[in-house]
Amino acid sequence: MTRFRIDLAYDGSDFHGWAAQPGLRTVQEELETWIGRVLRLPERPLLVCAGRTDAGVHARGQVAHLDLDLPDPEQVASTLSHKLRLALPADVSVRRVAVAPAGFDARFAAIWRRYAYRLTDGYADPLDRLTTAFIRGRLDVALVNTAAESLLGLHDFAAFCRARPGATTIRQLQWLHAERLPDGRVEIGVRADAFCHSMVRSLVGGLVEVGTGRKGVEWLAGLPDSVGRCGEIRVMPAKGLVLEEVRYPPDDQLANRARESRAMRSMTEESM
Amino acid sequence: MTRFRIDLAYDGSDFHGWAAQPGLRTVQEELETWIGRVLRLPERPLLVCAGRTDAGVHARGQVAHLDLDLPDPEQVASTLSHKLRLALPADVSVRRVAVAPAGFDARFAAIWRRYAYRLTDGYADPLDRLTTAFIRGRLDVALVNTAAESLLGLHDFAAFCRARPGATTIRQLQWLHAERLPDGRVEIGVRADAFCHSMVRSLVGGLVEVGTGRKGVEWLAGLPDSVGRCGEIRVMPAKGLVLEEVRYPPDDQLANRARESRAMRSMTEESM
Repeated sequence: MTRFRIDLAYDGSDFHGWAAQPGLRTVQEELETWIGRVLRLPERPLLVCAGRTDAGVHARGQVAHLDLDLPDPEQVASTLSHKLRLALPADVSVRRVAVAPAGFDARFAAIWRRYAYRLTDGYADPLDRLTTAFIRGRLDVALVNTAAESLLGLHDFAAFCRARPGATTIRQLQWLHAERLPDGRVEIGVRADAFCHSMVRSLVGGLVEVGTGRKGVEWLAGLPDSVGRCGEIRVMPAKGLVLEEVRYPPDDQLANRARESRAMRSMTEESM
Repeated sequence: MTRFRIDLAYDGSDFHGWAAQPGLRTVQEELETWIGRVLRLPERPLLVCAGRTDAGVHARGQVAHLDLDLPDPEQVASTLSHKLRLALPADVSVRRVAVAPAGFDARFAAIWRRYAYRLTDGYADPLDRLTTAFIRGRLDVALVNTAAESLLGLHDFAAFCRARPGATTIRQLQWLHAERLPDGRVEIGVRADAFCHSMVRSLVGGLVEVGTGRKGVEWLAGLPDSVGRCGEIRVMPAKGLVLEEVRYPPDDQLANRARESRAMRSMTEESM
């Protein structure tokens, strides 16, 4: 078996998210189907990705892996890259296909994921509408950044997550920063070791509450490590969200990192 | 009668261009219909725009005017701005509605139009696909700019235009410049007093021929002031093109400018 790494991007507008679901168009199913076809595999291969994006969420820097038992892996990578580029529909695009280094795992070997959320609190440019959410009220970016700092670090982010039985909500929030773009929109960037379900869109929802003056900084700062999901937080629309980048450690640390992530995951799952 | 100035933007993907055509969805028809509805006018008003964009071409800085015989024009402008924002579909957006200064004419008072054409000669990001054309071959941006300089100035651009009986193809090309964007795409900006039909897309088509090495700089430099339309030039896809900006002179020169443009237009029409 050879493991391949695939770097890809998609416009999530017409996908029901990453994860394959019967009868729905998903990124996973679209890619697996086309990989199976262009390589003439007897059955659809299985793709594992770094960030399982929800319905409507976009990606510029998604990473996935798949294992194939085929001769001449370098040739397979090159064929796959070339043929997928021609075959895939316009809303999903393969940036690169390569034989993965030893120990690589798209999901468990990642050290962080970075997302960007783009919104407008003023004029809505129709040419940005697929990737920009509209909010009511004017956003005070400095205030957003003050609030953002209060969320950084290792916390239980249950208040910001859709509960999933047996899954931890403890995350290392490494970076969270808002910036007004030259075109007037606001971009909120966020980086963590990993995110739980709907976490980025809830973090942005909380920041918008503070930045528009509807809630105070203390309210948001009090949410990490509180007990359950916070009903006052709005999950922001999917279309503003883009998975921008996934980072892996140097090749010689890939296997270690994957082992650690798996161990941490099973430990927290047992403890919940 | 009061003249109103409307600044607007649209995603041209689902429009058959600006100009109203029976049975087709056009920007003009969409706007005129909604203006008539929100102001409860007895009939659809007539909009005149600065740049009659073709099917599939986008605009960020389109300008239009319309004349209305209604009391309290300032209130009408404010109502129109507010109601259109709520009523219009997501692919067209009104940036501003104002009572126009005396002598204003969206078409004839303009001193220049600026367009941008975006293309990729490498990776095609699905999130940019509505506004970015793909080309085969690698573009040498420095070579494009050398070729671009040879086209500047007052010329007969018939080689780059779809002929329209009685219409001049003499234009003042003021600026034409290519730049590689940080994301790897190439943006070609162009400014002229006005453009004839398909001229921007043909100019870009010619520059791409040179920039990819398929033709020499001399070939392109020889086309202005040559007799008829050049069959070797490809009209680039509409989706890469955006009308970015229309510039008008200071208010006290508007009427003069409109008079000049009209006079020039009828003179050249008579001479052809």
